[in-house]
Amino acid sequence: MGRRIVIIGGVAAGPKAAARARRLDPGAEITVLERGPHASYGACGFPYYLSGRVKALDELMKTPSGKLRDRDYFDDVKDVRLLLRTEAVSIDRASKRVAVRNLETGETGTLPYDKLVLATGARPVAPPVPGMDRPNVFFLKTYEDARRLRAALDEIAELLRDKDIGGLQDARPLRAVVVGAGLIGLEVTEALRERGDLVTVVERLPQVLPPVDPELAGHLSRYADSQGVRILTGTSVEAIVGDGARATAVRTTAGELPADLVLVATGVRPEVALAEAAGLELGPSGAIRVDPHMRTSDPDIYAAGDCAEKVHVVSGKPCWVPLGSTANKEGRVAGTNAVLGDVDTFPGVAGSLVMRLFDLTVARTGLGEAEARQHGFDVLTALVVGGDKPHFMEDAAPILLKIVVDRGSRRVLGVQGVGRGDVARRVDAAVAPVSTGMTVDQVANLDLVYAPPYAPPMDLLLTAANAARNKLDGWASAVDPAAYREERRSGEPPVLVDVRSPAEHRALPFDGARLVPLGTLRARTDEIPKDRPVVLLCKIGLRGYEGQRILQGAGLDNVRFLEGGVVGWPYERPGP
Amino acid sequence: MGRRIVIIGGVAAGPKAAARARRLDPGAEITVLERGPHASYGACGFPYYLSGRVKALDELMKTPSGKLRDRDYFDDVKDVRLLLRTEAVSIDRASKRVAVRNLETGETGTLPYDKLVLATGARPVAPPVPGMDRPNVFFLKTYEDARRLRAALDEIAELLRDKDIGGLQDARPLRAVVVGAGLIGLEVTEALRERGDLVTVVERLPQVLPPVDPELAGHLSRYADSQGVRILTGTSVEAIVGDGARATAVRTTAGELPADLVLVATGVRPEVALAEAAGLELGPSGAIRVDPHMRTSDPDIYAAGDCAEKVHVVSGKPCWVPLGSTANKEGRVAGTNAVLGDVDTFPGVAGSLVMRLFDLTVARTGLGEAEARQHGFDVLTALVVGGDKPHFMEDAAPILLKIVVDRGSRRVLGVQGVGRGDVARRVDAAVAPVSTGMTVDQVANLDLVYAPPYAPPMDLLLTAANAARNKLDGWASAVDPAAYREERRSGEPPVLVDVRSPAEHRALPFDGARLVPLGTLRARTDEIPKDRPVVLLCKIGLRGYEGQRILQGAGLDNVRFLEGGVVGWPYERPGP
Repeated sequence: MGRRIVIIGGVAAGPKAAARARRLDPGAEITVLERGPHASYGACGFPYYLSGRVKALDELMKTPSGKLRDRDYFDDVKDVRLLLRTEAVSIDRASKRVAVRNLETGETGTLPYDKLVLATGARPVAPPVPGMDRPNVFFLKTYEDARRLRAALDEIAELLRDKDIGGLQDARPLRAVVVGAGLIGLEVTEALRERGDLVTVVERLPQVLPPVDPELAGHLSRYADSQGVRILTGTSVEAIVGDGARATAVRTTAGELPADLVLVATGVRPEVALAEAAGLELGPSGAIRVDPHMRTSDPDIYAAGDCAEKVHVVSGKPCWVPLGSTANKEGRVAGTNAVLGDVDTFPGVAGSLVMRLFDLTVARTGLGEAEARQHGFDVLTALVVGGDKPHFMEDAAPILLKIVVDRGSRRVLGVQGVGRGDVARRVDAAVAPVSTGMTVDQVANLDLVYAPPYAPPMDLLLTAANAARNKLDGWASAVDPAAYREERRSGEPPVLVDVRSPAEHRALPFDGARLVPLGTLRARTDEIPKDRPVVLLCKIGLRGYEGQRILQGAGLDNVRFLEGGVVGWPYERPGP
Repeated sequence: MGRRIVIIGGVAAGPKAAARARRLDPGAEITVLERGPHASYGACGFPYYLSGRVKALDELMKTPSGKLRDRDYFDDVKDVRLLLRTEAVSIDRASKRVAVRNLETGETGTLPYDKLVLATGARPVAPPVPGMDRPNVFFLKTYEDARRLRAALDEIAELLRDKDIGGLQDARPLRAVVVGAGLIGLEVTEALRERGDLVTVVERLPQVLPPVDPELAGHLSRYADSQGVRILTGTSVEAIVGDGARATAVRTTAGELPADLVLVATGVRPEVALAEAAGLELGPSGAIRVDPHMRTSDPDIYAAGDCAEKVHVVSGKPCWVPLGSTANKEGRVAGTNAVLGDVDTFPGVAGSLVMRLFDLTVARTGLGEAEARQHGFDVLTALVVGGDKPHFMEDAAPILLKIVVDRGSRRVLGVQGVGRGDVARRVDAAVAPVSTGMTVDQVANLDLVYAPPYAPPMDLLLTAANAARNKLDGWASAVDPAAYREERRSGEPPVLVDVRSPAEHRALPFDGARLVPLGTLRARTDEIPKDRPVVLLCKIGLRGYEGQRILQGAGLDNVRFLEGGVVGWPYERPGP
């Protein structure tokens, strides 16, 4: 008999570990336990099923060639025994057995293992407020959650349409309240808006999408607003109130929000109960502690995916970032090592993330600014705005990039971006640099691909690195939007000088700036006050920097430029 | 008086060096000499002006905020003296003077310098055949070239339309022959096709776009063909023949091709005459030898852009790759060092390239397969095909990636891709890994961004790395398309077994393969011949690999799968 590999959890890391183990060991006896009625599905696709872009939910459970990954598939193609609706009740590490129970029949039994892989995933958490159990309050974690939510959306929308019969006043779109402005909350917001629903998003923190820095979140919020989404940050949910059983409103610190339906997306936590009960060590993140081989504190037990702790490759510290991509990589490593012994390693995550919100992309890798400071780095940041292609290409679109650098080592700690342009490519290009500790000087000279349909000759990632170098080396004196906003609120705000063209100045006035176009600046340096701090303003920051160098060359030493210019300004624009 | 910096060449590297030097030294006296009547333009945008996507040629000479980079702009904004139509005749290195001549007035003079930057660029080369001087034979290098070519296209098309008056038979599209299927030749081909012109491309080499490997070029050629472009590879031009002065046809080794217009795009060579005459060293590539500071053999003379030799960061060897992106980076380094002394360095290029051909993208970085062998690496490659997004996303599109690896060190030497999907992002993500010598094992675990609108959970770059690892570690036994094609032509071709579904097998039959769907393979291993080599076929290579592991598990040891499957097959598909 072959080695017995038991895998607990059948969504992402589990099936991956099973498939890999099978390919390496045709003789192994591989069993996957899954509590739910479905396995091996793409949970990240749920929002696109809700919006209707994915026509049928089982598309998410098919192979790229269209085959459903059901029990027969696992049997015939993978030669893996898949036990659905089967719960792992406990692990007896001494005798190397898992006690299982069939959730349909109540039948119990034990499964002996030589190697065990825990892929128990994560579970959603909800704010501890009343009303969470109302029938039209939803989570979006499992296949069944997605099915139920979509059915409810369709049903309520249908009911609201039916009201049309009673008179024009009665027909109205569905009103949804999304609690939590993280990745899932915003993805579902996009989906609901695409359906035509009215969405209000409630977020306890002062910004949306907490993994990105506040400037980027500001752009996201303003953009969501332009798409008819109401975003309430710094707002806590107090209760979900109703008319009988059904929720009709969400009571928040910003008032009561009427709701036909509520989605709670306030995050997830690693599912570690089974591991904890078996005496396996947890890490500081609360997830199962693993070594680089994905091995838990028990040498015969691996953990992979959302239930496992990760190492952050930039900070070197333990962290927990649940993500389908990581689950697949870790599952592969666990599957390999379960068969071959500990020959493969997983180096960790870089905190990479990407999200689409309508036409906007936001992405990040590495450490954010605050995060980098928390880890003790001496942080310098640069913010740049530019086209994702040369401006003469018809589909060029602006993007904003922020780079986070360690001053001493000049190492790039993180890169984030937002915009209608191709942000994902620039962030992906930064993943290896951030993961391997490349310096801004190295990144600035990366030979990224170049042709007008794809990028300007100086890709914005390189420009961001150069902007950071200019600041590190003392050539550029910049003020970022948040700092400028603080200063202008202070007793003695800086003098703002607009170095754009008169036409641009008129079209998009900003904070009462006085106009001195860049081309005239050399001749008009005497008009620039020498006794007060001066901030130069332009469209994206480029001419501001140029102007700063001109004025410094003329002996003015208290001149800075506004990073990102008018386009990069993440707040409401202070008008004329 | 400030330091005198003279820059010869005003297109890309020159203006960049000037701008950088100015920002670092407000007191310097900076002069840029340009032989042509225009400076600081985006020559890479010419094809998009030809197609009409860029409305006016001077768009390519504007800043992102719409200001024309003319002499006034250089004066007012940059405080740089721009001398147009001014030729540098010779360099007297002993007295540090450049002899110049105004090409309009014939006036001559000398310009003293403290630091000199050579940014003389490249010049087009043409096959040494008769007829190259005919008036409707064009090159596309300078601003004036672009203007003349576009005017000629418009004029000829107009004439051909006018023929309509004489009868339906007479009206016909413009027939263009493009000599050379490199980057420029293919970009112009796309532009002409978009105009509605008929294009024939003549290429001396056996494939289009020589910087990419033959498999990728095969996909490009087949795609160009599907777009109505006639591609003649392995075909040499013998003469451009005409009716009087005008060319009417291109005589080639494949016959005479009627032509209303001919574009010669057979490559460029570094423009080094001035440097050579001044006794500066050239490198083995024929370009000006520079050190990492972009300094020539004369410590007061820098060279940057297309006239300068580069180091390839993967091979460590000198090379020459003319590209606007590199010119900008090198110009910045030269500008910095001309002011500050040799504080900045340029590490070299990675041979990165991207091109769009209608809806297809082709891109590469690092070394190609043949190139890697030439440099003495013990090469292993892997070819993978997959979606750029999960298959359930409506805009998912397939891409093919090829990864080139050094067996011993497991280092990734190069990555190339082609497809309708987002190839550029995957190649850009590979630039830093290739440049820093990351291994396939490291690349396989990169935390690339993941969300369904952007990527599948296992990005294809990671899949390519894993495919290479599977081959390196002996798990995968693959045959690539070229090798399979050779084998099937041999006396004893392998037995081809199709592990796709019956429906796929019927829809896209391939080379008489016998059908054994993957799900039935375990039960039917006895049907697979044991005495002959077996190759498994599927759609993209994934099920083929799975099948190979199944059959090897059943004791069959002469089984391989066809890399890339039917979708990755770059040649004409051998039917049923």
